Amino acid sequence: MDTDPNDLSRIIDAAAESATVLADSTPADRAGWLSHTADAIDAAADELVPLAAEETHLPENPRLRGELARTTFQLRLFAEVLADGEFLRATVDHADPQWPMGPRPDIRRSVVPIGPTLVFAASNFPFAFSVAGGDTAAALAAGCPVVLKAHPGHPRLSTRTGAIVREALLETGAPDGIFEVIHGIDAGTTALRHPVIAAAAFTGSVPGGRALFDIATARPRPIPFYGELGSVNPVVVLPDAVRARSRQIVAGFLGSFTLGAGQFCTKPGLLLLPSGHGLTDALRTAVRDTPGQPLLNDRIADSFRTRVTSLREHRSVTALSLPDIEADLLAPTLLTVSATDFLAGGELLHQECFGPAALIVEYANSAELQALLAALEPGLTATVFAEDSEIEEVRPLLPALTALAGRLIWNDWPTGVTVTWAQQHGGPYPATTAPTTTSVGAAAIDRFLRPVAWQGFPDSLLPPALREDNPWRLPRRIDGKRD
Amino acid sequence: MDTDPNDLSRIIDAAAESATVLADSTPADRAGWLSHTADAIDAAADELVPLAAEETHLPENPRLRGELARTTFQLRLFAEVLADGEFLRATVDHADPQWPMGPRPDIRRSVVPIGPTLVFAASNFPFAFSVAGGDTAAALAAGCPVVLKAHPGHPRLSTRTGAIVREALLETGAPDGIFEVIHGIDAGTTALRHPVIAAAAFTGSVPGGRALFDIATARPRPIPFYGELGSVNPVVVLPDAVRARSRQIVAGFLGSFTLGAGQFCTKPGLLLLPSGHGLTDALRTAVRDTPGQPLLNDRIADSFRTRVTSLREHRSVTALSLPDIEADLLAPTLLTVSATDFLAGGELLHQECFGPAALIVEYANSAELQALLAALEPGLTATVFAEDSEIEEVRPLLPALTALAGRLIWNDWPTGVTVTWAQQHGGPYPATTAPTTTSVGAAAIDRFLRPVAWQGFPDSLLPPALREDNPWRLPRRIDGKRD
Repeated sequence: MDTDPNDLSRIIDAAAESATVLADSTPADRAGWLSHTADAIDAAADELVPLAAEETHLPENPRLRGELARTTFQLRLFAEVLADGEFLRATVDHADPQWPMGPRPDIRRSVVPIGPTLVFAASNFPFAFSVAGGDTAAALAAGCPVVLKAHPGHPRLSTRTGAIVREALLETGAPDGIFEVIHGIDAGTTALRHPVIAAAAFTGSVPGGRALFDIATARPRPIPFYGELGSVNPVVVLPDAVRARSRQIVAGFLGSFTLGAGQFCTKPGLLLLPSGHGLTDALRTAVRDTPGQPLLNDRIADSFRTRVTSLREHRSVTALSLPDIEADLLAPTLLTVSATDFLAGGELLHQECFGPAALIVEYANSAELQALLAALEPGLTATVFAEDSEIEEVRPLLPALTALAGRLIWNDWPTGVTVTWAQQHGGPYPATTAPTTTSVGAAAIDRFLRPVAWQGFPDSLLPPALREDNPWRLPRRIDGKRD
Repeated sequence: MDTDPNDLSRIIDAAAESATVLADSTPADRAGWLSHTADAIDAAADELVPLAAEETHLPENPRLRGELARTTFQLRLFAEVLADGEFLRATVDHADPQWPMGPRPDIRRSVVPIGPTLVFAASNFPFAFSVAGGDTAAALAAGCPVVLKAHPGHPRLSTRTGAIVREALLETGAPDGIFEVIHGIDAGTTALRHPVIAAAAFTGSVPGGRALFDIATARPRPIPFYGELGSVNPVVVLPDAVRARSRQIVAGFLGSFTLGAGQFCTKPGLLLLPSGHGLTDALRTAVRDTPGQPLLNDRIADSFRTRVTSLREHRSVTALSLPDIEADLLAPTLLTVSATDFLAGGELLHQECFGPAALIVEYANSAELQALLAALEPGLTATVFAEDSEIEEVRPLLPALTALAGRLIWNDWPTGVTVTWAQQHGGPYPATTAPTTTSVGAAAIDRFLRPVAWQGFPDSLLPPALREDNPWRLPRRIDGKRD
């Protein structure tokens, strides 16, 4: 049931109140809250996973069990980030009368929580990008209260997960108001316009994310909006790789673009193959042998059917498979087009098609491949399959590939997005609305932190991270040098 | 003369072309370019400073000479940031089959230049926030070509400085297209809408900055817009400080709010004094003794006159000085209001008035002071004057002060903004449109860098920062641990 305006108002007021308490919490406090929350979710797995399966049509094993493990791992990784302390970017410049541009006062910089954060959950990851997902984990780690707008695709799971998260947080001493789940489009957009909300995060479609981004930036006081929208995730295969590994490439591609019924933001939607690749029969067979799957919900299925129908009807496109598009279980659709036709073919061919479909683009030579890369829509990932013998042929492609994406992948499929210190999940628009940030990995915490400098302050009024005796033993930069 | 559309188009194409070359430049290359540019500007000081004085009405000494020194120091500081290498945030996670959420591939993260950057120069700092100013220095340091929209207040200085910068960059091997100055509102907004432009930075007024922010966010592909807009910069004085240092506070306040004719983004526009402070006569005398100054240009002067007239006519406000507002040289205007009237007085009292005017707000007790702080518009700075005996009275004010600003200052005036590693110049809107960033100090480079992860890449195709043997000897995080 949608959150009514009175409840929403109470929730946002409580978030605002808890923000002050949270700003005074230590990283160690928050690490404890996150670890306990992870334990509580793990303990509830046997209740949550079947609920998720029921609401999303995703298989329990290995998909939903794996996603839950990813989710609790992510909470624990942020506990490590908090213990590490580098995220505080503690920087101390002592007063210096000889500073070349003129005498310098004592000035010290660290970060504070940005404030109450609104998180919009995704449809396609009911755990990892939803109630207790990456954005929530990163914002809580940063010390921000979270108002979580549930995705309508899994409302009961959201309510239940929300209750578990809330209880775990409060049990370990977090302030009331730190976390609440809200439901309904109106509640979400009202919250997004509320003056108390200081930042918002979103994972979902380009139209949905763009509409919310437009609201966030049109506010009297605009706020950062971290939207992770869409991506075509091109995969370039070079000729020697085709020759050496045709079977693995066909099987891997089928597995990757149909994983989760193609409803991953990193689904490889475009496969760039050299002309004369000789894989057509193998691809056709592999597609035919891949069973149909249900999509997450009717809205997504309808939009997929419309889109695939347009693609099939596109005059330059040839279908390698023509599954029954009206079936409940949707078998994969694979299409091909030449590079020339792709370049002339308009937006339909260039943009993400969410669901089990992919387009093969055949390039005649390296000049045509370069022209393709220059014309692709940017996104989350760009992948290269090549043999060691082709390294020098890849080198000139790297500038174009780097301009295209936030993650470059060598000889592997983009659908695996590991959660680590070095992960980057983002990229130029429409991959995200905030290309200097990531929504996965340790650096995701930075989105919810605001730098502040303290000038000439008495030591006892400084945050611990900046006190002269460094009570938290943080890595710091002192007078321009790393500790 | 305004840049015509053909020239603009040529300039942007050249920037796009140079971006690829720049992405391949090393931090050491760029450090050399910046240092040489600083030397070239210093060498031209005797030509540039008089030109600046003529166009801006700002005094040569110490103001413009000091600002030029600040500007070249800033270029050199970024050369140090480049040599230091931490800005690359090099992070290496080796493949780990035991990674708790599932086997982890080798994944490595660093940053790349965001791409061609459009910088809008400010009126009030013809050097430090203009052609060769902080945004330009940070973007060039990051490896981004810069298209610089000159401020119409100092067009000849902008053209001349631009020529010196461009020549210095090219002399040291930077690619053609790395830096060009453009003129005219149309050229600026056309460039801001151009698909090649990947980020923009701005220093100026709230209405001007907001209009440009709205253009940047409404693009088909929105881009980061780093706008530094306005700030009221409240200064809180506690009772013991008034008693102990009345003379210094009066003199310091007058000096700070009239510095540069009050045309600083960190001008203390609000002075919060305890009721019965007894400073009224001293303030009145000090204001009367402060000579009038010309404003930067007629547009700013007109807008200042309109605004000050409204303030004088506000029914709750009492004027401590009533200088001739139509004079060419504008003497400072000082006004007072009670906390109660200020809280009920509407936007006019709460927002920045650019020019030599300030408002004193009298608070009756600490509860009223807390209420004031909760109601103030956020901004760049918040300042406290207090004696050591009052430290425990300041402590409960800190959460509100921190929520208000990007820099908190103890017993000093906000108009000095030193350039250091720890500096933070930003804050919640309207201080900036990007509260997680700074436009002054070493961290300003981060605005123009985009993180990228390389997954499973052959060592020879990785950027040097991420190669296994760490050829640049960078500080790195390896498998979660700092090197």
